[in-house]
Amino acid sequence: MAERSATAEWKGGLKDGNGKMSLGSGAFEGSFSFGTRMEDEKGTNPEELIGAALAGCFSMALAATLGKEGLSVKEIDTSTKVEFGKEGDGFAIKFINLETKADIDGIDEAKFQEIAEKVKETCPVAKALAVQINLKANLV
Amino acid sequence: MAERSATAEWKGGLKDGNGKMSLGSGAFEGSFSFGTRMEDEKGTNPEELIGAALAGCFSMALAATLGKEGLSVKEIDTSTKVEFGKEGDGFAIKFINLETKADIDGIDEAKFQEIAEKVKETCPVAKALAVQINLKANLV
Repeated sequence: MAERSATAEWKGGLKDGNGKMSLGSGAFEGSFSFGTRMEDEKGTNPEELIGAALAGCFSMALAATLGKEGLSVKEIDTSTKVEFGKEGDGFAIKFINLETKADIDGIDEAKFQEIAEKVKETCPVAKALAVQINLKANLV
Repeated sequence: MAERSATAEWKGGLKDGNGKMSLGSGAFEGSFSFGTRMEDEKGTNPEELIGAALAGCFSMALAATLGKEGLSVKEIDTSTKVEFGKEGDGFAIKFINLETKADIDGIDEAKFQEIAEKVKETCPVAKALAVQINLKANLV
């Protein structure tokens, strides 16, 4: 079993404070605040990290699954849109739109859709998420 | 409602290929591969992005909730450890250990624990996760 780590710090209150999120690998450290999360200030936010994790995991798992079928992957391009808003007294991720464009030799549309749907259900990050994921998969 | 975005690309097969995950804000773009995800090669992986998102969201939500109680937050330091391993034919995030150290004036231990547990259940990223989160909260 692998253990992956991360840290965050926050100083001050919700609106006057600010924080930093850091990856255990050291690859990234980014500032966030009320303004970068709820408004359009420059900086990062937890929701786009979730979106990147899902896009990355889905793309890698799609390549792995296609490989098991003996298919050769040229390129997979995936984008995610994480919808975030008020829910009751707080906030929630409402759903995630996941769109992928795959360049693969020798696969028909029906088989591709079947594999993409399966990967949406089985990739580790998708399995770890409780929110609805809407998939749009395209062969290019 | 806010929409946050991210992208990923993957080229090649599972073991000979490699990818890149990018945040919509432009704050980060990181390379990943079988080696950076399953082994110890230098680079990032989706699991540490999930860990950072949870650590950041929990810290900000804890500051927000303490503020609503009229309490003043000096600093909140949070770390996450995401346990990732084989499950059936594939891989899964098994659980996440979340540890926080909070420097807050004028709060007693029982009230702090009650608030930290509540935030673990209600912060947007925790609500979006289907995996078990084990919280250890400390006043410093």
